[in-house]
Amino acid sequence: MSGTPEPPVIVLVRPQLGENIGKAARAMLNFGLTEMRLVTPRDGWPNPAAGPAASGADVVLAGARVFESVAEAVSDCAHVYATTVRKRGVTKPVLTPHEAAGEIHVNEGRSAILFGPERSGLETDDVAVARAIITVPINPEFGSLNLAQAVILCAYEWSRGRELVQPTMEELLPPAPQDELEGLIGHFEALLEPRGYFFPKSRAAATRRTLRNVLTKPGWNHLEVRTLRGVLSAIEKSTPRD
Amino acid sequence: MSGTPEPPVIVLVRPQLGENIGKAARAMLNFGLTEMRLVTPRDGWPNPAAGPAASGADVVLAGARVFESVAEAVSDCAHVYATTVRKRGVTKPVLTPHEAAGEIHVNEGRSAILFGPERSGLETDDVAVARAIITVPINPEFGSLNLAQAVILCAYEWSRGRELVQPTMEELLPPAPQDELEGLIGHFEALLEPRGYFFPKSRAAATRRTLRNVLTKPGWNHLEVRTLRGVLSAIEKSTPRD
Repeated sequence: MSGTPEPPVIVLVRPQLGENIGKAARAMLNFGLTEMRLVTPRDGWPNPAAGPAASGADVVLAGARVFESVAEAVSDCAHVYATTVRKRGVTKPVLTPHEAAGEIHVNEGRSAILFGPERSGLETDDVAVARAIITVPINPEFGSLNLAQAVILCAYEWSRGRELVQPTMEELLPPAPQDELEGLIGHFEALLEPRGYFFPKSRAAATRRTLRNVLTKPGWNHLEVRTLRGVLSAIEKSTPRD
Repeated sequence: MSGTPEPPVIVLVRPQLGENIGKAARAMLNFGLTEMRLVTPRDGWPNPAAGPAASGADVVLAGARVFESVAEAVSDCAHVYATTVRKRGVTKPVLTPHEAAGEIHVNEGRSAILFGPERSGLETDDVAVARAIITVPINPEFGSLNLAQAVILCAYEWSRGRELVQPTMEELLPPAPQDELEGLIGHFEALLEPRGYFFPKSRAAATRRTLRNVLTKPGWNHLEVRTLRGVLSAIEKSTPRD
């Protein structure tokens, strides 16, 4: 009831193909979800087709538990969400995956997300177990999300809101100090001056300014400035070989 | 330069299986993306395995265009993003799909997102074409996104932000289209090659990549690129006067 909220349980209701159970496991683990529950999978459990499709997410499959009904599968969960492709006149809140993830992060008690069978989706009776519906906003002229894709979008949204998500540790270097930039600009000018680039004299100031602006914009770091100094030196010191 | 920004182009670089091209098309169309480009697909194009996997997203496959190189595939794009699983010491901004989508919604000029081959992902040379990298924040102990999943997350994020779109009224010119940038890089190389800059040969590829990265970073607009072409021409055509 305190500290980090638990990750949601992913409940596959009457899944048909073992392959899709494996793909769903893979989708889950990519975003740190590990608890899968299966409600009367069509071909029984374990299913030999699941493993290869999981691409290494075996820990999820190994921990998957089987239940006889949706109600039993979510018996320990305080918040149940049902995913549906389109609303069917249900009188429950309809959330996007993003909104649902926001709730799940602050929910007290465990949350579960229900996903229906590949062909038909959840039945009305399954949806009835849930307090809210999750619908992915989708192209109204082409809505064709498969099971693993629906799972991955929900898992992704859950993971996005988590603090634990690895920071993108950019290794970006800061722009070089101004004197290095001045050195680069000076180098360009020294190379261009004797080649008549700043001719006619009446335009020289504007031309210098234009060049300075072009070279200032990038915010090159000191390594990049060094690379360009090397380019200029190569041009300066040698004449073409052929 | 005005109105709703165009949706991003999805570029599959050297995709291996037709099935995965179909799945990527399906992923795209779910979220309203329709423009797919293919760089030297392994098994040629069209590929009979793509259609069934697209589950009806035929309009995307029918419009897919094939290119010989990444540079050609994005020649009309002003903003090129490369998706990678992990950072490899690259000195480019690293964005989440969410952050990238935010940029794409306000970018002036077309945006393209590069996705690498199924097994290996994008090569360093492919990444060098891009100004920024997209990395999905993923379970550090299990990162296993397939091609269509990576596509769907980017497409989903793009679609999510769509309603919120507001034009940024910056008068800034967009980065020059990729073919103009390629022209600039080619000009630099043509100037440097005969001067021994790319010597020794064993280092040439890395040196070219470094130079490309330095020149890609700024996002120069077409006027700035023209200024630099002028600089190079001045160096090239004339010898110092004294």
